[in-house]
Amino acid sequence: MRYVSFSKDGKQYFGKATETGIIELSTSFPQWKTLKNVIIDNGFDRLEEIACKRDESYYLDEVQFDIPIPDPGKIICVGVNYPGRNEEFNDQNPAPKNPSLFVRFPRSLVGHNRPILIPKESEKLDFEAEVVIVIGKEARRVPIDRAMDYIVGISIANEGSIRDWMRHGKFNVTQGKNFEKSGSMGPWFVRYSKQDQLADINLESRLNGEVMQQDRTGRMIFTFARIIEYITTFTTLEPGDVILTGTPTGNGSFRNPPLFLKEGDLLEIEADGLGCLKNRVMKEQC
Amino acid sequence: MRYVSFSKDGKQYFGKATETGIIELSTSFPQWKTLKNVIIDNGFDRLEEIACKRDESYYLDEVQFDIPIPDPGKIICVGVNYPGRNEEFNDQNPAPKNPSLFVRFPRSLVGHNRPILIPKESEKLDFEAEVVIVIGKEARRVPIDRAMDYIVGISIANEGSIRDWMRHGKFNVTQGKNFEKSGSMGPWFVRYSKQDQLADINLESRLNGEVMQQDRTGRMIFTFARIIEYITTFTTLEPGDVILTGTPTGNGSFRNPPLFLKEGDLLEIEADGLGCLKNRVMKEQC
Repeated sequence: MRYVSFSKDGKQYFGKATETGIIELSTSFPQWKTLKNVIIDNGFDRLEEIACKRDESYYLDEVQFDIPIPDPGKIICVGVNYPGRNEEFNDQNPAPKNPSLFVRFPRSLVGHNRPILIPKESEKLDFEAEVVIVIGKEARRVPIDRAMDYIVGISIANEGSIRDWMRHGKFNVTQGKNFEKSGSMGPWFVRYSKQDQLADINLESRLNGEVMQQDRTGRMIFTFARIIEYITTFTTLEPGDVILTGTPTGNGSFRNPPLFLKEGDLLEIEADGLGCLKNRVMKEQC
Repeated sequence: MRYVSFSKDGKQYFGKATETGIIELSTSFPQWKTLKNVIIDNGFDRLEEIACKRDESYYLDEVQFDIPIPDPGKIICVGVNYPGRNEEFNDQNPAPKNPSLFVRFPRSLVGHNRPILIPKESEKLDFEAEVVIVIGKEARRVPIDRAMDYIVGISIANEGSIRDWMRHGKFNVTQGKNFEKSGSMGPWFVRYSKQDQLADINLESRLNGEVMQQDRTGRMIFTFARIIEYITTFTTLEPGDVILTGTPTGNGSFRNPPLFLKEGDLLEIEADGLGCLKNRVMKEQC
């Protein structure tokens, strides 16, 4: 079951995606502003009840996709989480024992089919294919063997980065990870109900049709369960919180020679069962 | 003019602080959930209109203080921003040309007079005195000479940190900066209207009465205006967004020998015109 957040004529909606279209559902549930509220109230069965009686409201290409949870309380990103990724940094440091974590703001991400932007300040826009998990209920100090119970949905992200703004200050990558519209998420939120939806799925990015990154989630250094266990050691994950779980080797800036996105490029990120997130690259208008 | 967010009998309110008490104002403005909404609607004159006709609703010690903006869209923290601070890291790197930035979640902070917690996972709770600025209106790519116009209010923070979780992964300090209730903010939100409220104020922290950190904002490496200019290069600051602007030298972990907070300690952070933020230290209960 795939749900979408989208805009039409300047208004925001959520709905269910079928093979060909979208069944708009938010006007039937005015108590829920976004899919985050549906998660908080565990309202998916009620959405299904209405959706199964309705035809599609729009074709997929008639709407503008938003990021699946437009208003998450937190977006936490995991760094250095696939084999070979630590070595790409070429800093002689051993593989880390714990996940590296940083934060993105929702404004740094656009939905499926919307343009991602090369900002005025830099030409070094890079891409990172990632699997996304969305938290379904409040979680603090969760044991690893119960951690997967806290996932309500999954999606795909391009954790786009402005490379020369990553170590712009003394430490931390906040600025390089938060240029507006430098990344993307979607196309949809897929409800999570069984382990094989995540356990060992294929994840890849393609630039203008050519495979750039490819790996399987079964090879992740820190598993989905470990990530949830670790984060909930220090903070409470809340319904609608979003975690980006790291990218395979092969993104642009670590290539020789380095490769950055150019105007007109088509970036596609695909993962088994999660669809294909597509975004064109545009230069920001002054 | 000083405004507070507070709880009484489990309910959240905002109000105006006088010398001795609080004039509760939120029940007169049900359209505004928190002070963030007052900022968004530029409603301070309307608060004043009501406040000047009323007596105090509570004595200051009758309520529980919350952080002044309980629901900020973002809390961005600046690292390494006072003279001597870069040298404390003892890493032979030159002073940075740009601010280091990281993110805190609101749950990592408690209000004035509430206990800050030594978590179960570490005994290395450290303190950092900081001046806080709150953004009043949407800001993107703001020129430095107009940046101060975007500040609506100021406050004080203890940017409390769990030192051995700061470089726990390969990079970034997210986890060490986000243990729940490891820091604090308050006591109040002071409306900002003229430059000398911030330009060169004294900031200090005291542990059990002894001065630990002391400096003046006039000596900051990155000025308030520069911080706003820099952050708005990559993202949009929004009404109610909160920026912690860095701490002077002298916090516990860089001392010789290192000093960490212990149960029962009283931490006080004071800044000219902003009051004194007090918090006792407690060990987290299992």
